[in-house]
Amino acid sequence: MSRVARQVSVIAALAFTSLVHAEDVATPKPKKVLDTIMNPAYIPGEEKHASYWRTSAAATIQDKLNQKINTNRAKNGIFFIGDGMSLATIMAARTFAGQLEREVGEDNTLSFEKFPVSGLARTYCLDAQVPDSACTATSYLTGVKTKYGTIGLDGNVTRGACSSQLHQGNLVSSIGQWALDAGLDAGLVTTTRVTHASPAGMYAHSSERNWEADSDVPQECLDLGCKDIAYQLVKEKPGNMYKVIMGGGRREFTPNITNAQFKSGGKRLDNLDLTEAWHADKMQKNATHQYVTDRNELMKVFNAEELPEYLLGLFNDDHMAYHLQARDQPTLEEMVEVAIKMLSRNPKGYFLFVEGGRIDHAHHDSLAHLALDETVEYAKAVEKAKSLTSREDTLIVVSSDHAHTMTVAGYPSRGNDILGTVDTALGSDDIPYTTISYANGKGQSVGADGKRIDVTKSQSFLTRSLDYEYPGMVPMDSETHGGEDVAVYALGPWQHLFTASYEQNVVPHLIAYAMCIGNEKDEHCKPKSGGFWSPNSSSNKVFFRRTKLC
Amino acid sequence: MSRVARQVSVIAALAFTSLVHAEDVATPKPKKVLDTIMNPAYIPGEEKHASYWRTSAAATIQDKLNQKINTNRAKNGIFFIGDGMSLATIMAARTFAGQLEREVGEDNTLSFEKFPVSGLARTYCLDAQVPDSACTATSYLTGVKTKYGTIGLDGNVTRGACSSQLHQGNLVSSIGQWALDAGLDAGLVTTTRVTHASPAGMYAHSSERNWEADSDVPQECLDLGCKDIAYQLVKEKPGNMYKVIMGGGRREFTPNITNAQFKSGGKRLDNLDLTEAWHADKMQKNATHQYVTDRNELMKVFNAEELPEYLLGLFNDDHMAYHLQARDQPTLEEMVEVAIKMLSRNPKGYFLFVEGGRIDHAHHDSLAHLALDETVEYAKAVEKAKSLTSREDTLIVVSSDHAHTMTVAGYPSRGNDILGTVDTALGSDDIPYTTISYANGKGQSVGADGKRIDVTKSQSFLTRSLDYEYPGMVPMDSETHGGEDVAVYALGPWQHLFTASYEQNVVPHLIAYAMCIGNEKDEHCKPKSGGFWSPNSSSNKVFFRRTKLC
Repeated sequence: MSRVARQVSVIAALAFTSLVHAEDVATPKPKKVLDTIMNPAYIPGEEKHASYWRTSAAATIQDKLNQKINTNRAKNGIFFIGDGMSLATIMAARTFAGQLEREVGEDNTLSFEKFPVSGLARTYCLDAQVPDSACTATSYLTGVKTKYGTIGLDGNVTRGACSSQLHQGNLVSSIGQWALDAGLDAGLVTTTRVTHASPAGMYAHSSERNWEADSDVPQECLDLGCKDIAYQLVKEKPGNMYKVIMGGGRREFTPNITNAQFKSGGKRLDNLDLTEAWHADKMQKNATHQYVTDRNELMKVFNAEELPEYLLGLFNDDHMAYHLQARDQPTLEEMVEVAIKMLSRNPKGYFLFVEGGRIDHAHHDSLAHLALDETVEYAKAVEKAKSLTSREDTLIVVSSDHAHTMTVAGYPSRGNDILGTVDTALGSDDIPYTTISYANGKGQSVGADGKRIDVTKSQSFLTRSLDYEYPGMVPMDSETHGGEDVAVYALGPWQHLFTASYEQNVVPHLIAYAMCIGNEKDEHCKPKSGGFWSPNSSSNKVFFRRTKLC
Repeated sequence: MSRVARQVSVIAALAFTSLVHAEDVATPKPKKVLDTIMNPAYIPGEEKHASYWRTSAAATIQDKLNQKINTNRAKNGIFFIGDGMSLATIMAARTFAGQLEREVGEDNTLSFEKFPVSGLARTYCLDAQVPDSACTATSYLTGVKTKYGTIGLDGNVTRGACSSQLHQGNLVSSIGQWALDAGLDAGLVTTTRVTHASPAGMYAHSSERNWEADSDVPQECLDLGCKDIAYQLVKEKPGNMYKVIMGGGRREFTPNITNAQFKSGGKRLDNLDLTEAWHADKMQKNATHQYVTDRNELMKVFNAEELPEYLLGLFNDDHMAYHLQARDQPTLEEMVEVAIKMLSRNPKGYFLFVEGGRIDHAHHDSLAHLALDETVEYAKAVEKAKSLTSREDTLIVVSSDHAHTMTVAGYPSRGNDILGTVDTALGSDDIPYTTISYANGKGQSVGADGKRIDVTKSQSFLTRSLDYEYPGMVPMDSETHGGEDVAVYALGPWQHLFTASYEQNVVPHLIAYAMCIGNEKDEHCKPKSGGFWSPNSSSNKVFFRRTKLC
């Protein structure tokens, strides 16, 4: 509460002193203002000395110089997507997490920000300047850009045109499939419904992202033989081969009836209970398996002497709850730990897709506090994956599918509450404004009187309530995505390939190249005994090698 | 005009059809909307086929694999800063430039986006969560983070506290100075006043960024012996050693009198004509030199048989004009070409700082059209530098000092005018909205009637007038900076060090390391005859080496 208290006192001060902030404008500001521009900011004492920055820069260079080239085959690949995790979200989340711990937070570092390589991915889709999570999932999981709203299909398919999704030639396979084809295990973990757009990119072919249960699919499409996304996950390849599937979305799997078994009711009209179908499939495969629906059940599986061969975890009817509002559900970090333990048993390796999917939902609802917390949870899951694996044989890639319109604005003082108002200036309407805001969305910026709303009169804002909607300029039911590139962070074999600016659909091809799956195979994929490409080979004088790609 | 015409027709269509856009929301949208969400977008035919994306991804991987490690000493370093060039600015500018040429633009690539390495820099300053261009210039040019509004001083100095700027212990030197100390030549080129915050980071020590001429400095500070920034550039080291200085800001150098010589009048009250002082200094150095004030004069110098040893170009009283509004001034590209020609004569090499400074100004004034064009001009200057140098001996680094609050919002169709309104949806108030907008600024979003302004009723918007102010949510005289990280792109020796996420102040240390100037020297800095670190050394089996840093 101390930060909030500080914020409130600053707001009180601002009410009497309308500060003008000097910026990059042609005309110098009146001199009398110059010394009073910034409110007192908290500055860690050591940072005042030049030596602090020179020493820390030297340490950073040293870290970089200590990096060794790693051209091992990546036995395992773990691909994390923070849905809607824009660069501004990352910056705000690191600051938020830092401020929870101590006075300042700007210099905090989220786990994946310590990765030795970063790149930038362009997110536009075939028909959209600013994409959705379906076409981007197709891009970053199948390596093919496609149309807005469609999953696992190339651009010959129009959204919602079900007949064309049945043409094999239009289908594109995911890196999860490529891993299975190479004898690896694969799985997925998400905080959304497991049938939602991003995870669906791992297994589904659907001309409409919203066809999660059969009741979402138009009758004429069902008649043609189109299957809903949940059905594809359980009954078709590669979904039915995935060793671990965890997230929310139980309702997409269960019948639309209410009884003791289905107390909350499902969405299915075909009377199928797909959790039962999943069970039957594993029985037929003669494989041990477990279906769990809450954290306790999951922990029992995790702590048991022997893990089942297959694990299905559906922890909510809809999306999993936001971490800060959750009860009796595992954290993303916990699910990642279980998934890695499950998949690590395959001596050939595995591919795991992990989505922090509710960063995006919180943004869409203008709930910045929740978006930042979900990002912090996501970073914890990455850290867990890192701690459970070796960079010698496991490639971890962290990225986002698209940006959002959230910005971090004004010139707040160092240590100023990232969820608060800017402490150094008011708008020219003499009303405070929040550091975080959106270009559009549910959060109102203008009141019924036509004036900009003073957020400092909102109890919900002052208490940093989780349901406080940060203001957006254009009123909308759902805040929109943003169009700028997303960051990519990489650690492990072939990490160096992930730098520079590239199209988003290149990412799975890069992962596949490092893992020697899919079409991108090269000399490093040969067995190590003949290892021209072992990392310490003395003939490895040229960093990168020519290769023959398909 | 075709794009504008298209936009207008779309607007007309929207007036009758309020489209709802499906997003990542929990509840599926009504099915009848699904097939009509996107307006027809232009899609290049080949992109509809999966093979197109697989082939282009394979080519990208091949490019990456063809990269060779380059551990040459960087004889030359060229450091480009796009002031305020956020990631969203880069995305919008590439789209803008592409759309000027053809129907789509999202897949266009600005020159520096083709560089083989990218990184991310954190921009916060000592006392500011979101920084200004003064503390960031100190960060990326001296390697030391400092306080908002101060230049070339460490954090022991309070903004505007002139006495402390006189203590030698508080001064921090720039990479320009480090280059001179190593016997290299150095220079700077900018589109702002050469005394503005960013270029001032190359030579000045000032507790107040706005002290560009003596008339800006309080009398008590002048009495103490504090010098204004223009004075420091001309009369003190390292500014008076720079071989080339080009940009705007003539008024900061000339007396506040009006006569035939000073027709537009200067700002100086000390009766100094610093252009004359510059001339006298070069005379004293017995060096050939030339002072130019327009493009013609510059081209004469450039095309003459012999270049002068020193060149001072001040092409405007204030900042140079925006490229799209300029008359008789060189482009940034032209200035860079001249500067490289000037500096290339030193056999030991050079360091050149180049700023595309008016991207920031256009953003501050909500003039997105100009901001994008200035970014495109900046990219051309980078391309010119690349074409005139060799990546074997010249390191080019491209970055920004800080972000802005501009976002690219909504789900516009592929090929939709980046400067127009989103073609796929209206706000929930049934009013169109622009793809580009700001969190705050001069551009109004709400009219006197308390309702959101319909931009499609603005002639200035419809004609894409350069002075159209894109809407911002919080009214402000000057749109503010944004707080997220900025991208870094690198090409040339030791380019691989520039990947990952790091503090902005690391950048000059990395450049210095590659160039063997300043304190960061290593084995690769030894003469090449004894060259353990020549790039093709067979003992170069480990990519990075340990080094001893100061």
